[in-house]
Amino acid sequence: MKILVLQGANMNWLGKREPEKYGTTTADELDERLRAHAQAQNVEIEIRYHNIEGEAIDTLQAAERDGVDAVVLNPGGFSYAGYALRDCMVGVTVPVVELHMTNHYARGIHSVTASAAVAVFLGLGIETYFHAFDAAVGVARKRRNTDG
Amino acid sequence: MKILVLQGANMNWLGKREPEKYGTTTADELDERLRAHAQAQNVEIEIRYHNIEGEAIDTLQAAERDGVDAVVLNPGGFSYAGYALRDCMVGVTVPVVELHMTNHYARGIHSVTASAAVAVFLGLGIETYFHAFDAAVGVARKRRNTDG
Amino acid sequence: MKILVLQGANMNWLGKREPEKYGTTTADELDERLRAHAQAQNVEIEIRYHNIEGEAIDTLQAAERDGVDAVVLNPGGFSYAGYALRDCMVGVTVPVVELHMTNHYARGIHSVTASAAVAVFLGLGIETYFHAFDAAVGVARKRRNTDG
Amino acid sequence: MKILVLQGANMNWLGKREPEKYGTTTADELDERLRAHAQAQNVEIEIRYHNIEGEAIDTLQAAERDGVDAVVLNPGGFSYAGYALRDCMVGVTVPVVELHMTNHYARGIHSVTASAAVAVFLGLGIETYFHAFDAAVGVARKRRNTDG
Amino acid sequence: MKILVLQGANMNWLGKREPEKYGTTTADELDERLRAHAQAQNVEIEIRYHNIEGEAIDTLQAAERDGVDAVVLNPGGFSYAGYALRDCMVGVTVPVVELHMTNHYARGIHSVTASAAVAVFLGLGIETYFHAFDAAVGVARKRRNTDG
Amino acid sequence: MKILVLQGANMNWLGKREPEKYGTTTADELDERLRAHAQAQNVEIEIRYHNIEGEAIDTLQAAERDGVDAVVLNPGGFSYAGYALRDCMVGVTVPVVELHMTNHYARGIHSVTASAAVAVFLGLGIETYFHAFDAAVGVARKRRNTDG
Amino acid sequence: MKILVLQGANMNWLGKREPEKYGTTTADELDERLRAHAQAQNVEIEIRYHNIEGEAIDTLQAAERDGVDAVVLNPGGFSYAGYALRDCMVGVTVPVVELHMTNHYARGIHSVTASAAVAVFLGLGIETYFHAFDAAVGVARKRRNTDG
Amino acid sequence: MKILVLQGANMNWLGKREPEKYGTTTADELDERLRAHAQAQNVEIEIRYHNIEGEAIDTLQAAERDGVDAVVLNPGGFSYAGYALRDCMVGVTVPVVELHMTNHYARGIHSVTASAAVAVFLGLGIETYFHAFDAAVGVARKRRNTDG
Amino acid sequence: MKILVLQGANMNWLGKREPEKYGTTTADELDERLRAHAQAQNVEIEIRYHNIEGEAIDTLQAAERDGVDAVVLNPGGFSYAGYALRDCMVGVTVPVVELHMTNHYARGIHSVTASAAVAVFLGLGIETYFHAFDAAVGVARKRRNTDG
Amino acid sequence: MKILVLQGANMNWLGKREPEKYGTTTADELDERLRAHAQAQNVEIEIRYHNIEGEAIDTLQAAERDGVDAVVLNPGGFSYAGYALRDCMVGVTVPVVELHMTNHYARGIHSVTASAAVAVFLGLGIETYFHAFDAAVGVARKRRNTDG
Amino acid sequence: MKILVLQGANMNWLGKREPEKYGTTTADELDERLRAHAQAQNVEIEIRYHNIEGEAIDTLQAAERDGVDAVVLNPGGFSYAGYALRDCMVGVTVPVVELHMTNHYARGIHSVTASAAVAVFLGLGIETYFHAFDAAVGVARKRRNTDG
Amino acid sequence: MKILVLQGANMNWLGKREPEKYGTTTADELDERLRAHAQAQNVEIEIRYHNIEGEAIDTLQAAERDGVDAVVLNPGGFSYAGYALRDCMVGVTVPVVELHMTNHYARGIHSVTASAAVAVFLGLGIETYFHAFDAAVGVARKRRNTDG
Repeated sequence: MKILVLQGANMNWLGKREPEKYGTTTADELDERLRAHAQAQNVEIEIRYHNIEGEAIDTLQAAERDGVDAVVLNPGGFSYAGYALRDCMVGVTVPVVELHMTNHYARGIHSVTASAAVAVFLGLGIETYFHAFDAAVGVARKRRNTDG
Repeated sequence: MKILVLQGANMNWLGKREPEKYGTTTADELDERLRAHAQAQNVEIEIRYHNIEGEAIDTLQAAERDGVDAVVLNPGGFSYAGYALRDCMVGVTVPVVELHMTNHYARGIHSVTASAAVAVFLGLGIETYFHAFDAAVGVARKRRNTDG
Repeated sequence: MKILVLQGANMNWLGKREPEKYGTTTADELDERLRAHAQAQNVEIEIRYHNIEGEAIDTLQAAERDGVDAVVLNPGGFSYAGYALRDCMVGVTVPVVELHMTNHYARGIHSVTASAAVAVFLGLGIETYFHAFDAAVGVARKRRNTDG
Repeated sequence: MKILVLQGANMNWLGKREPEKYGTTTADELDERLRAHAQAQNVEIEIRYHNIEGEAIDTLQAAERDGVDAVVLNPGGFSYAGYALRDCMVGVTVPVVELHMTNHYARGIHSVTASAAVAVFLGLGIETYFHAFDAAVGVARKRRNTDG
Repeated sequence: MKILVLQGANMNWLGKREPEKYGTTTADELDERLRAHAQAQNVEIEIRYHNIEGEAIDTLQAAERDGVDAVVLNPGGFSYAGYALRDCMVGVTVPVVELHMTNHYARGIHSVTASAAVAVFLGLGIETYFHAFDAAVGVARKRRNTDG
Repeated sequence: MKILVLQGANMNWLGKREPEKYGTTTADELDERLRAHAQAQNVEIEIRYHNIEGEAIDTLQAAERDGVDAVVLNPGGFSYAGYALRDCMVGVTVPVVELHMTNHYARGIHSVTASAAVAVFLGLGIETYFHAFDAAVGVARKRRNTDG
Repeated sequence: MKILVLQGANMNWLGKREPEKYGTTTADELDERLRAHAQAQNVEIEIRYHNIEGEAIDTLQAAERDGVDAVVLNPGGFSYAGYALRDCMVGVTVPVVELHMTNHYARGIHSVTASAAVAVFLGLGIETYFHAFDAAVGVARKRRNTDG
Repeated sequence: MKILVLQGANMNWLGKREPEKYGTTTADELDERLRAHAQAQNVEIEIRYHNIEGEAIDTLQAAERDGVDAVVLNPGGFSYAGYALRDCMVGVTVPVVELHMTNHYARGIHSVTASAAVAVFLGLGIETYFHAFDAAVGVARKRRNTDG
Repeated sequence: MKILVLQGANMNWLGKREPEKYGTTTADELDERLRAHAQAQNVEIEIRYHNIEGEAIDTLQAAERDGVDAVVLNPGGFSYAGYALRDCMVGVTVPVVELHMTNHYARGIHSVTASAAVAVFLGLGIETYFHAFDAAVGVARKRRNTDG
Repeated sequence: MKILVLQGANMNWLGKREPEKYGTTTADELDERLRAHAQAQNVEIEIRYHNIEGEAIDTLQAAERDGVDAVVLNPGGFSYAGYALRDCMVGVTVPVVELHMTNHYARGIHSVTASAAVAVFLGLGIETYFHAFDAAVGVARKRRNTDG
Repeated sequence: MKILVLQGANMNWLGKREPEKYGTTTADELDERLRAHAQAQNVEIEIRYHNIEGEAIDTLQAAERDGVDAVVLNPGGFSYAGYALRDCMVGVTVPVVELHMTNHYARGIHSVTASAAVAVFLGLGIETYFHAFDAAVGVARKRRNTDG
Repeated sequence: MKILVLQGANMNWLGKREPEKYGTTTADELDERLRAHAQAQNVEIEIRYHNIEGEAIDTLQAAERDGVDAVVLNPGGFSYAGYALRDCMVGVTVPVVELHMTNHYARGIHSVTASAAVAVFLGLGIETYFHAFDAAVGVARKRRNTDG
């Protein structure tokens, strides 16, 4: 089983960017924790950061072609106007679990990609990644069973 | 550690109500699974169903008084205009993890209580309860550590 | 055949409340007329008044369980924000004929429950109840024939 | 007593037009059933179909002049922008019972003529005509008594 | 010099229609007064009433072809959605002075044809016609002088 | 003379709820101060707290029946969607003075019940109750004089 | 009979201000033409220019006190937000005929004072003043007859 | 194969109406070119102009009855509020290719009939008719093949 | 202790202006009653009327400089667009109690200055001034105690 | 003569992406058909796919520099927020014919680039490309003649 | 060369008004610095403060008459509804450079006068005046060269 | 001291793109002038053009890392939907002075990045760059002094 973690615009800036809002864990530290978390479940993991929306689309299309089982997506800066990415999510069959580190409802933000995800998790800071990862694994397992 | 699962309007109708949207698991079956899930983590659980918003407020205030560690809330029918419940969530200190079984982003629904939750999980059907429960336990643990 | 007449918030105040708008027939007098009207058609009738939306939901769920054939609903004060009641109407299979004594189109009022009714009758004052009752009987007859 | 049944744009296409929404009863068959229904109540009936809004206005003005007692109106295609017809309904004294075969609340449609009707009935398919006809007869009777 | 007075939907009902708003002068009486008023200024006058918007368009196109000098228009019921009439007014060169008997600003009404008129006069009841007629004559005189 | 003080959703949580916004005076302490204030003016006082909107409606209807002279209402959580309570206020004749402890204008909040009150006082914290109480007594005195 | 011509903000700049829109007639030239026009009808005229809204209010209140028969108002720059002037127009009994030199409908401008006028004339450039003046005289005559 | 070209309000004014926007080709010249174009493809053509929306509906219903293969529609002045025509397009099975001579996107215009067309072509002036005609022929060919 | 009563646009017209809405007490009579009311509490009072918003700003700035303890403000005609006055209220430290004689909630009016007041009282006619005056005295006392 | 076919975000996914909406023709198959179509008309063709909006801008600027005669553009995922691409279209002189395979009017989608195109063709699936290509050739021919 | 610095409502309160937002430099200190800055460039400077919008209009008209070369305007409290001032700016030929000390984009404020300025500078506190002054001098120089 | 000039989408097209709006100075000529301007102040300058928003983000992050003192940004085509760039500006500490060559207020354009800038300068064509550059130098100097 293989999970792709797809990080949108500015997520490479994690830990430096508004730490009072997003915490001090850096992108490198998060990656390390995610890899350990995946390994503990014997799940293959790939992590990609993109500041360019079109490259995120390329990566998602490649994941579809390569048989990735599920995607964990934090659209970051693509949340506001990432309609092309959303169309891509609609166009592929691989399920996407979207996450946001903060509670968008409390901040008055609306993610335009969320409608194309199977699930959306918001608000638990860096921990949201791990909950979303587990959910993605669950969705992927169920999908294998259904398809099989 | 004690978690309150608070079910809003029409959630007692689970399994009978639009099964193509909410599945066929009944409220009783869900309760049984939740109790087993809690017991496995050695966490005390209380489950309450309310069709009357004011009674949900009473229950939440009581949870605050009784030292409940965290709340898992599916506001159900209170999602649309449950402003009084939202004010109650703001007024208590016990953290609330809100969940919805379907992806509201895909359905064009906006929960008015969500802004007062610490986290919001949407879209994984009956499984959303278990992800939200685990998140609530995590939030409660962190809170005990911080307060202690 | 059994019809439930469900009266929403403030309908118990009929005859006293803005008589220039809603007439001087009291709730008791209406009930008497409705019972006679039902009896003349050999139809069983139950009439319930609720100022609490959650109790109207309970009553509607009970009607579903008890095999009521159709419901005549004047949501009264629930018209404006009764989204939980609307979700309940969607979740049960018993058909609901909604009525309003005044023409909402002329008053700029929008009932949020109406989208979940099979039919909506507006504008004929106290007489609207009897037209709606007859329509409910018709819907119930058709439903029995279809199901049978 | 004389009732005018006024059919708006596209109603002559009944039975052929979106039968899954409006049923398979044709305009001719409806007319036959309406005439029998009127005769059974000893009420004179006139049925008119108009695809041109201005001609519907002419017919409504003529009905006023000719002493028609009440009008049953399905504005059909005039529902969306028939403001001139609405002004005509306001300008005549003959009462109009408006009907729509489908539940507009469920379809997100708003009839601009409805504010000028005395009553509005929606949602019972072809049967809505007969309920509206009976309501019109009732309104006409009451009006005669009041005026007499 | 020739002036066309073009009366829109329901204006033929003048005197009978909401007399508290539009007065008791009938269409026939208005015509008589307008003809006398025109004759006193030695101006030719033609008066046309249309309940059908497309016929008002035909009349306006004919006026253009026949060399009418200016048009006095009360769009009546076409005020709300007479976009086709407005396009016609834009497409002809003959100037149109639009009038309304009541003050639309006080009633919250917006005429969609008014943007295509050279002038708009509102609020003086039946007298508005005579002020608008005089304005039309003035515009026509100026136009002849300019063109000549 | 008798005044009813009616406290809406979450007002029983006073003193504990967002004290930086609503102060530290508890509901019990407020009641004590209000009773002393009423007694000093020789006015009978009844104080009721409701988290359930329908029960607030019951209490208001009962006040009308029992001849209460005026009502002091803080709708609390009912401010946002308490349309049924507002309809009840319109339907009874007993005058209601509505109050809010904070300045809603500064917070961007709109009370839907306020349109049915005779007066609205906002912004003076716990003191707002006493100003509103005095206003209610004044309104009641004037009403007795007018009616008598 | 006495008519007040009240000129709002920037009208003193007439002739210099956007001549392609407002023409080249200066304020002085307009005044001269208006005085001659009034004298020819044996009507007393007073002309006032105000760039300060509150002074226009003072002038209008003074006109009411001094028995002016009618007012001709071009609110100029007060058109957009002159709500205080509008309230003043509502509060006095002297009738106001409002005018605008350009067709506001074509320019997408909405005058907030117009709802308080008895009549509104738009679009004929400098000539609009004379049509409005005549209308004001007519309104004043009718008012004297009615009051007398 | 037979194609109906249906011209909406004001299209008979082509060549005279705003030539800087719609060109100088007259309706007669367009008809001639269209007939030659059809003949060259051995396709029967019928061209109809209507300023009255209801007559356009009649013509479209007749086309359906007479087995016309496809319709080319320029709704002209019906674009803005032709909801009845749109309902007719939905109600017939004959496919409609809608066209506009100018690019509505650049002008901020929205055609209400376009949602019921199979295709919409905009912006190429008089040439748009020929592209739309060819598209209609293509749609009709495909439809014959599919049905056959 | 010194209180400034600041009256906005058209308030000098009190008693003459829409008496059915604002009563028949004139500005002079109100002033007399306010002075007596202040004297009875041994509070110095200054009353100012302004039809010009900028002069109200000057007066408010002067009050700040002169050590006025609190202001009672009826913005009158400045309610609708008095943003400059609002900014002034934000910029000074002297507290302002705003009042309106009518219930704005019932009339659909929104005061733009109210967000900068410490309290807002609406709806009790002429009596609203005295309630607001007492509130201003209370605020001023509290402020002196806090500052002292 | 040279035509550039510019494919926006996700268009490389054609045939795999929502085939019930966009058909099963793949991007490669489309390219082959387009090349044959161009060759048959002796027109040079270049086809470019971009998931990155900025690269589409680069390509369009290059086309301008290289003297391409016209562009056929399906903005795909850039339709929703491709304002930068739109500004580029405005800034170059090469004409663009925009196309969409589905009828956006029926789907409630608005293309933000369309206002900068000379023509817009929607709704004929894969065939839309060929109609748009022919239109682009026509526009280019006309442009050469005009410029020449 | 002569530059007018025009200060709108509440700008005379600079240094006292919300110093955390606008700094502690007073109006007097700013004037002194501006005069020195102008003198250093050998440019004549006039500084005017107005709390009354109509007086700002008078000053701007006077500047036009007196041949002032350019204006530096901080509309202050006129930013929100100073439409009359904006019309004046449109009506004069002297160019206006508008400035705001804070970044309106960050505060969600929209200046209604800004559309009539040649340039708008925002966000650098007291320094914004000097940047705007230099820009005004530059605009004036260019204008002299162009006109000369 | 080092300043980065960051040019957004389509700015490389300067001089060729809508010269009547943006002038005829090309990007190369602007760069030359900017370099000379910087050198004259002994300030290091780097100029970057990006049509791809994600690359502008990369450049801004690199500037932060490399200790650039301030940024001059013309977002160009990113103005409309560059939310990801805006989030990046919020996330870095280097101050950004945003500029636009035209007055957006006059054109009805809203830049979504501007809220994250320290200052915004609009409207002086090519000269706006130099004013913005000077402002950026000033901000950088102040920042060094404050930090130092």
